[in-house]
Amino acid sequence: MGPGRLHALVDGVFAIAMTLLVLDLPQPADSQHLVHDLLHAWPSYVAYLVSFATVGILWIEHHGMMSAVRQVNRRFLERTLLFLLFISVIPWPTSIAARYAQHASQARGAAVLYATTMLLMGVSFSLGWRYLAEHPDLVAEPARGAFPAGFRRALYGGLVYLVAIALAFVSPLASFTVDALIAVYFAVSKSEVPGLIHRAAQSGERAPSG
Amino acid sequence: MGPGRLHALVDGVFAIAMTLLVLDLPQPADSQHLVHDLLHAWPSYVAYLVSFATVGILWIEHHGMMSAVRQVNRRFLERTLLFLLFISVIPWPTSIAARYAQHASQARGAAVLYATTMLLMGVSFSLGWRYLAEHPDLVAEPARGAFPAGFRRALYGGLVYLVAIALAFVSPLASFTVDALIAVYFAVSKSEVPGLIHRAAQSGERAPSG
Amino acid sequence: MGPGRLHALVDGVFAIAMTLLVLDLPQPADSQHLVHDLLHAWPSYVAYLVSFATVGILWIEHHGMMSAVRQVNRRFLERTLLFLLFISVIPWPTSIAARYAQHASQARGAAVLYATTMLLMGVSFSLGWRYLAEHPDLVAEPARGAFPAGFRRALYGGLVYLVAIALAFVSPLASFTVDALIAVYFAVSKSEVPGLIHRAAQSGERAPSG
Amino acid sequence: MGPGRLHALVDGVFAIAMTLLVLDLPQPADSQHLVHDLLHAWPSYVAYLVSFATVGILWIEHHGMMSAVRQVNRRFLERTLLFLLFISVIPWPTSIAARYAQHASQARGAAVLYATTMLLMGVSFSLGWRYLAEHPDLVAEPARGAFPAGFRRALYGGLVYLVAIALAFVSPLASFTVDALIAVYFAVSKSEVPGLIHRAAQSGERAPSG
Repeated sequence: MGPGRLHALVDGVFAIAMTLLVLDLPQPADSQHLVHDLLHAWPSYVAYLVSFATVGILWIEHHGMMSAVRQVNRRFLERTLLFLLFISVIPWPTSIAARYAQHASQARGAAVLYATTMLLMGVSFSLGWRYLAEHPDLVAEPARGAFPAGFRRALYGGLVYLVAIALAFVSPLASFTVDALIAVYFAVSKSEVPGLIHRAAQSGERAPSG
Repeated sequence: MGPGRLHALVDGVFAIAMTLLVLDLPQPADSQHLVHDLLHAWPSYVAYLVSFATVGILWIEHHGMMSAVRQVNRRFLERTLLFLLFISVIPWPTSIAARYAQHASQARGAAVLYATTMLLMGVSFSLGWRYLAEHPDLVAEPARGAFPAGFRRALYGGLVYLVAIALAFVSPLASFTVDALIAVYFAVSKSEVPGLIHRAAQSGERAPSG
Repeated sequence: MGPGRLHALVDGVFAIAMTLLVLDLPQPADSQHLVHDLLHAWPSYVAYLVSFATVGILWIEHHGMMSAVRQVNRRFLERTLLFLLFISVIPWPTSIAARYAQHASQARGAAVLYATTMLLMGVSFSLGWRYLAEHPDLVAEPARGAFPAGFRRALYGGLVYLVAIALAFVSPLASFTVDALIAVYFAVSKSEVPGLIHRAAQSGERAPSG
Repeated sequence: MGPGRLHALVDGVFAIAMTLLVLDLPQPADSQHLVHDLLHAWPSYVAYLVSFATVGILWIEHHGMMSAVRQVNRRFLERTLLFLLFISVIPWPTSIAARYAQHASQARGAAVLYATTMLLMGVSFSLGWRYLAEHPDLVAEPARGAFPAGFRRALYGGLVYLVAIALAFVSPLASFTVDALIAVYFAVSKSEVPGLIHRAAQSGERAPSG
């Protein structure tokens, strides 16, 4: 079957996960020092930004991958649902991280939870790339060669969070910093993989919305 | 009328129901034992996984059914809305199940509520199959023969939750286990019905997004 | 411009409003009488059902109206946003109605709020019909004649809520019953207007998704 | 790549941000004076209306801009995500504004927060216009000339919120009034830019949904 309706579900889950992050921003009740209280909650804003950026970049990457997909089957849909599971769960570790990032004894657990979610998100994303690398019949002919490289890029991008998990035991703050740096790296990196796939897909024989 | 906009509403409701489940995950405030408190809430994660998987599989099944539908009418839209009613309500029994699954005296009620919602979801899904089996003019010609079997598969899949409801009175834990096993069964089952419909629809004369 | 992206926004707002209703269902914490507490909250389920059905039927009606629309302009987009304002606000009066429907002295205010929101929703919907009746250039040629009748149907359907508002001062329960009956009436009514528009639109020259 | 899936994400984020505003409306628990309590919360309704109208008008404007876009690239996607960041955050300053608008000493902070969010939203929107003005290859040929004027219109529309920020230090109420007036102005203004772009895009060679 064509990938059209899968796009609708994926875009919906991404849009909702990105927007539900707002529910974790501070809502002080009856504050007598509103500006102070809002500034004091600065980890919430950092967590919001990092999660929003990470999910946004993953949406761009997923969008790039899917632009070369011509057919989807049930096994690929199930892999995509596994990826969406970790996308949809993102507001939860973000909220925990925002609350406990400055907590002397509990920040470590929050940092491990956050980086572990990101790790699972990245690895489940790479499983989609691998499935397509192993099932080239689902992919537009000229783009097939780029999928093994795309799998490696997604997998390594996910495994970097192992560093953030390990660092959490030394310094939770350093762990969160690594999470943020990964988002920045992927935002500015000049990987040729998605570009290759786009150009290959555009020279292909069928439109991706078919 | 064509089924295009119905897809948009259906995909939206599924995406939101799947993503709102995150609001039920534990958010301990000012915990001094964050890791312990999060681990202690393990029924929340199981309930999240089972509900997400069940809704995800139903999305795949609905997607399969709709791929052969060429026209929709008001009566079919109303049956679809009834199905969406039970999809959209899913975060509620999930939340109740997560809170009361380990409660000595109240777990039974939570297990009955959860399995009953799943039962109603499955039965309302089967009503859509039956309507299409009885109105073959709405369906692509080569796929029409598969709809009676699709109705039976959806109906039996829903009625299995009667077992979970009955078991709840003996052991709530066993009841929840059945709920989880049904999701696993449908994830790995090799039913030919959706595949038949897809292949038939693809050999049909018009694109499903028309 | 074509109406394609307006559909996406409209379907998104409807899907979210329908799904956010779930946040108003009862979530008893640490209950020792879960079944009793859940049954006691029966007005929540009635309010959920009536709001879901009303919004669902309005989605079907809006879908029917839009199937004949070939072009949209800024003034029509603004009228649609006004309609979406009342759709998106629906979880709020629903929640108030569920909480206060059984309250001796406060049910009246809740009933007035609920019916007034429905009134504004219906009237703002009828404004869309009227704008299209007055701007037939936006509508597929064969369907133009049906828009004045569609406007009247939507307007009268909205104005019936004046009865529910008036009844609230005599009996809040009677007022809520009228709200429910209006949803039932529109679900089973056999109005020819949307059908006329669909058939006319299908004989028209361009696809609505253009 | 074509802009089709970007539309889906954008429309999803707008629809969710508009609908999540409802969570900030007052939900008095066990009130003995429901009507009084609801009327007393009038700043909530004004904040809801102004935020809904501002986001709605921005959706219309973004819709107009995108109707001439034929290709999107990664840099443009990133600028759009930045814009969506401020759209998705809107329920937060709206909630703070509704709670503190009548607070003697804390209204100033709420007014600055609200107008600053709007400023960032407007400026990030103008960055999209500027990128397209500087990359005319992404835009339908006949519409290219209108993008510099569109950039200036969006930028000035955003910078007006500097007035609201400055006014907050004199009178928070006056600041909120300016926020509301900006929404009214853009709702009724007769700018030729989006109209020019639409007409140019329609005379272009490819459909925007491609």
